[in-house]
Amino acid sequence: MSLKPVVILSRPSLSQNIGACARAMKNFGLSEMRLIAPQADWLNRDARALSADADDLLEAAKVFKTTEEAFADLQHIYATTARPRDMIKDVVTPKELAPEVNSHLAHGKAVGILMGSEKAGLENEEIALCDKIVTIPLNPEFSSINLAQATILVCYELYQAQTNIKDMPEAWNSDEEPAPREELFGFFSHLESELEKQNYYRCPEKRPTMDRNLRNMFARAKFTSQEVRTLRGVISSLTSSFTPKNKN
Amino acid sequence: MSLKPVVILSRPSLSQNIGACARAMKNFGLSEMRLIAPQADWLNRDARALSADADDLLEAAKVFKTTEEAFADLQHIYATTARPRDMIKDVVTPKELAPEVNSHLAHGKAVGILMGSEKAGLENEEIALCDKIVTIPLNPEFSSINLAQATILVCYELYQAQTNIKDMPEAWNSDEEPAPREELFGFFSHLESELEKQNYYRCPEKRPTMDRNLRNMFARAKFTSQEVRTLRGVISSLTSSFTPKNKN
Repeated sequence: MSLKPVVILSRPSLSQNIGACARAMKNFGLSEMRLIAPQADWLNRDARALSADADDLLEAAKVFKTTEEAFADLQHIYATTARPRDMIKDVVTPKELAPEVNSHLAHGKAVGILMGSEKAGLENEEIALCDKIVTIPLNPEFSSINLAQATILVCYELYQAQTNIKDMPEAWNSDEEPAPREELFGFFSHLESELEKQNYYRCPEKRPTMDRNLRNMFARAKFTSQEVRTLRGVISSLTSSFTPKNKN
Repeated sequence: MSLKPVVILSRPSLSQNIGACARAMKNFGLSEMRLIAPQADWLNRDARALSADADDLLEAAKVFKTTEEAFADLQHIYATTARPRDMIKDVVTPKELAPEVNSHLAHGKAVGILMGSEKAGLENEEIALCDKIVTIPLNPEFSSINLAQATILVCYELYQAQTNIKDMPEAWNSDEEPAPREELFGFFSHLESELEKQNYYRCPEKRPTMDRNLRNMFARAKFTSQEVRTLRGVISSLTSSFTPKNKN
């Protein structure tokens, strides 16, 4: 029993799209692709090129003549399509789909996601065999979405819902931490004393505001210790008399 | 001022991908594409075929020679890339990105999303000019994602989060806006030219890294236009010969 959802392409008509679907699936950890009556070669050069090293999925793809056969061992099946006009069926978005699917999988159920052909989408007869419809919310004025693009959006949501948020990127991406404040204050003192020497504070009564503005700007950047040292090096360099200056 | 984020492709190398990106953008209501030094024709037959009637975006694409030019009028810029090894920068997922971007847009700010080239991704020099990094959580064993696929995932999340934006608090807590990038770049040039005069770059081969580190530090702080002017005043003051200096 698979613990991952199966992606089922119904009558795909372009090798490139089948390859791109395989890559999209593998990007999000899925591995089983099923093909219903494929209209294109899923193992040719185009398919392999677009799969970009996901050709293991192409080689393992299971091929069926009919929708019924492809669905035979599955327990929950979702049809990815625009909301159909005249069929009464629950509709979920990919975001809503994901926790449902994960719940099914957690209970050991076999889940399939059906994707329609590039040319004709899904037929009502196929949709009727599915439990629910997955509809991607799209720009209503331009809702023609590529097969592999629709596939990756569904795979993406399934993966996001599986992954522990704790494993995701941290907001602060570094082994390094913001410098202890005293280092930042040391930089402020350094900068301000150099500015004082240069007569930057022409109006003494404005100095507190000027200092506050500068400190606020630099505090916001959350510099690391190394960065504070770099900044102090910059100040030292700018104020050194190492080389003659040519000013206008 | 754009009320939608701009998608910026850096050195895209395949016409098909540029076309597929245009389609992905239009699927989720985005319209402005920028190209930095494109390595492929974005108006040829392949590009148009993959855009699937989103060729209006291709025709309207703005082309720039440098990253700096492409960023000039933008205020918040996100670099879409895997977590970089040695750069200190906030990292968000596409899901976390979306409410942030929508909040910026709701407050009239100009937002850009930078996407790397198919071959080489983004260079550290480009990432350093951005505010934050967007990292798509991917299968760690197969994390090579197609450019158009990465683009659609980001566009998708931005679109999904567009509801309720009016209620979002502004992440950027100020009446003032971050300076347009060109002002920050003007500051970089000013600072770097002064440092050069002072022989700060003792080893020429290290200069690119030194500049990148400085730019990264300052880009992170999101200075306002007034703050950039203040910083330039600080540099001018520190490098002036207004008063004699007493050095140890």
